[in-house]
Amino acid sequence: MKIPVLGVGCTKFGELWNMSLADLLAQAQHEALRDADLKPADVDLLVVANMGAEVWSGQAHLGALAADVLGVSAPTMRVEAACASGGAALAAGVMAIMSGAARVVMVSGVEKMTDADPALVTSGLMGACLRDAEYRAGASFASLFALVTRQYFHTYGIGRQHLAAVSVKNHANALNNPLAHLHKKITIDDVLCAPMIADPLSLLDCSPISDGAATIILASPAFLDSGQAGKSLACAHKGVSIIASAQASDTMTIAARPTLTSFAATKTAAARAYAQACITPEMIDVVELHDAFTMAELIALEDLGFCDPGMAAQVFAPFELALCASSVQMGSSDSVRGEEPARQAPGTTRANINPSGGLKAKGHPIGATGVAQAVEVVKFLRNDHQRRYGMTHNMGGIGTSVAVHVFEKDSH
Amino acid sequence: MKIPVLGVGCTKFGELWNMSLADLLAQAQHEALRDADLKPADVDLLVVANMGAEVWSGQAHLGALAADVLGVSAPTMRVEAACASGGAALAAGVMAIMSGAARVVMVSGVEKMTDADPALVTSGLMGACLRDAEYRAGASFASLFALVTRQYFHTYGIGRQHLAAVSVKNHANALNNPLAHLHKKITIDDVLCAPMIADPLSLLDCSPISDGAATIILASPAFLDSGQAGKSLACAHKGVSIIASAQASDTMTIAARPTLTSFAATKTAAARAYAQACITPEMIDVVELHDAFTMAELIALEDLGFCDPGMAAQVFAPFELALCASSVQMGSSDSVRGEEPARQAPGTTRANINPSGGLKAKGHPIGATGVAQAVEVVKFLRNDHQRRYGMTHNMGGIGTSVAVHVFEKDSH
Repeated sequence: MKIPVLGVGCTKFGELWNMSLADLLAQAQHEALRDADLKPADVDLLVVANMGAEVWSGQAHLGALAADVLGVSAPTMRVEAACASGGAALAAGVMAIMSGAARVVMVSGVEKMTDADPALVTSGLMGACLRDAEYRAGASFASLFALVTRQYFHTYGIGRQHLAAVSVKNHANALNNPLAHLHKKITIDDVLCAPMIADPLSLLDCSPISDGAATIILASPAFLDSGQAGKSLACAHKGVSIIASAQASDTMTIAARPTLTSFAATKTAAARAYAQACITPEMIDVVELHDAFTMAELIALEDLGFCDPGMAAQVFAPFELALCASSVQMGSSDSVRGEEPARQAPGTTRANINPSGGLKAKGHPIGATGVAQAVEVVKFLRNDHQRRYGMTHNMGGIGTSVAVHVFEKDSH
Repeated sequence: MKIPVLGVGCTKFGELWNMSLADLLAQAQHEALRDADLKPADVDLLVVANMGAEVWSGQAHLGALAADVLGVSAPTMRVEAACASGGAALAAGVMAIMSGAARVVMVSGVEKMTDADPALVTSGLMGACLRDAEYRAGASFASLFALVTRQYFHTYGIGRQHLAAVSVKNHANALNNPLAHLHKKITIDDVLCAPMIADPLSLLDCSPISDGAATIILASPAFLDSGQAGKSLACAHKGVSIIASAQASDTMTIAARPTLTSFAATKTAAARAYAQACITPEMIDVVELHDAFTMAELIALEDLGFCDPGMAAQVFAPFELALCASSVQMGSSDSVRGEEPARQAPGTTRANINPSGGLKAKGHPIGATGVAQAVEVVKFLRNDHQRRYGMTHNMGGIGTSVAVHVFEKDSH
């Protein structure tokens, strides 16, 4: 598989009260078209990822809305897989190209959450879980992830300070990302002293509620090679392609799982993606992974094969913290000291993890997230000539739906 | 394109208060698996069509729910295109097979509407239109279709009695369909005297609010031919294939259209489907088309190429009524007389139109509708050895999203 990425676009993530769903889509879509040097009429199919616009804005039919915004009559579909909607939409876009049904596919993701009733946001998000079980029992997403965190702490002997390092690192990364929702340098103490949301997860262990949209344009390689594209389209391919697209699912309720410290769907999707791309985890240079909660980043690092089970905490553990965690190998002593933010410890994994700031600090407008991860990886690979392979990991529910994509920069 | 249909399943449509979304999915999915002689583990991808479960049941993530019901960890995606969700999901399933990403795809559609607050149902359905325009202006789906109907009446000189004939015919057809929501023989007078919903559309011009689910299982032809399928799977193909899958879109708001008496998206999707299938409208033996309102059936007949513009009323016009409608050619004198229900007039089109009872009488559980249309066409072709080609036409919004599929029975 080799699906060229022609263009990418992404709005600022944040509290965008002055922009409608249509405004957000328009901005991301037009930016991607300009990046690709394409016109709206060049698009054969629009796929739109969105989780909750019916509930939060009273608007369904987001595929048709995306076409409306561009003024085209192309076929459309809206894809939803809870927080993995963006990854599932990207997978659908890849299938559309591979099938021959479309030469150029525009995959967008959009969500508007910050101006909805907060109770409706929390309740709507619980639609990702088994409504008749977890939601009726009074659980929220944060409380379910708190259960996961408690089992992980119990199993591997780490503590809140190790999660805090993830948050500090992602907030530090977001300072370099002008599109990020949260531009705020934080410390380990800030995380540990933040208001408790669902013990042991504090406010700074949780990703924010955000608005935003992102777009990626894919093309058929045969079409690009055929010369039908015309000069502008043939030139538009900026040198990054999707070389693997894999998904898997798990039970809706965590009550049916043998363990909470690892997500089988991530492992399965990752194994499929590595096989498709013919690479190993060691070859990945950059990964945007699904850190809806700090705990999720550590589990994803293990399930994606970047660390052995129970060892992810050391990747970001500052020296001082590592001393407190008996079961965790020490990270490098220079990773966090004084004013220095937490960052990855040398000798753990070479992959740059969530350089965008991740869901934690870049923000998490649900439908946009999986597409924005792809946008970030494409930009990262384009801008760093030393890096070749990138990965995105997008998760819906508590590890229920997972999509993993691998990107490669052309060697020429 | 030739995508074998391995199995189909469909629940009763109606007020199914004792069945949850999961119950409905389970029944349709297991029936289709039995029909195909497949096990759940044979399914490589689950696609689920649903419009409003977030709003009406608080449940999103329907793809994962469908996998949960089967106890499998296959990739999933939920597809939504308002009332065309089922058709869009079927198109996604076809793409998945064509792409090589999946050998066996299960496409299901499900909706639960009758136990939600009726105001929430009406409001949720308006999510199919441009929320900030039509819904805020106080329009409902019925009132928008009443505008369409008034322009059609004005342009072509027909009246309410011609719409009534559509409803009488579809109710008569539903009497032969044990799965139909409404089993009630009605007369032209019943329709004309029914309570007015949005003038000139009465209650019996509108499809009902229903619960239901439907499933269709598609397979890769290469996989079936390869023998990898094993004997049971190779034998499972019951002789009907999808030979065309086409979609198109139009503006979200009808205010932006040059005319209301025809839907451009239906014309475009139909033209693409006929071209893919290499057939003409005259060759279609059976069509399940999107009669959410009686007016929609007449417009669809014209846009799909079964009649010239303005001539669809004659297809179902009983002799007595035709006398009153100066601009309409007369139907056959034996089409309706005394107790005889309205039916298609000889010499118009040979296609059997909505033999299931259509949305009007079979019912319209939104997400299930487009998939159930396919189920009906497959059953019809399997059971009638004289018939070869079938078509489904599924529409979302007021002609905003349209999916058209063509089915062919194998000649052997």
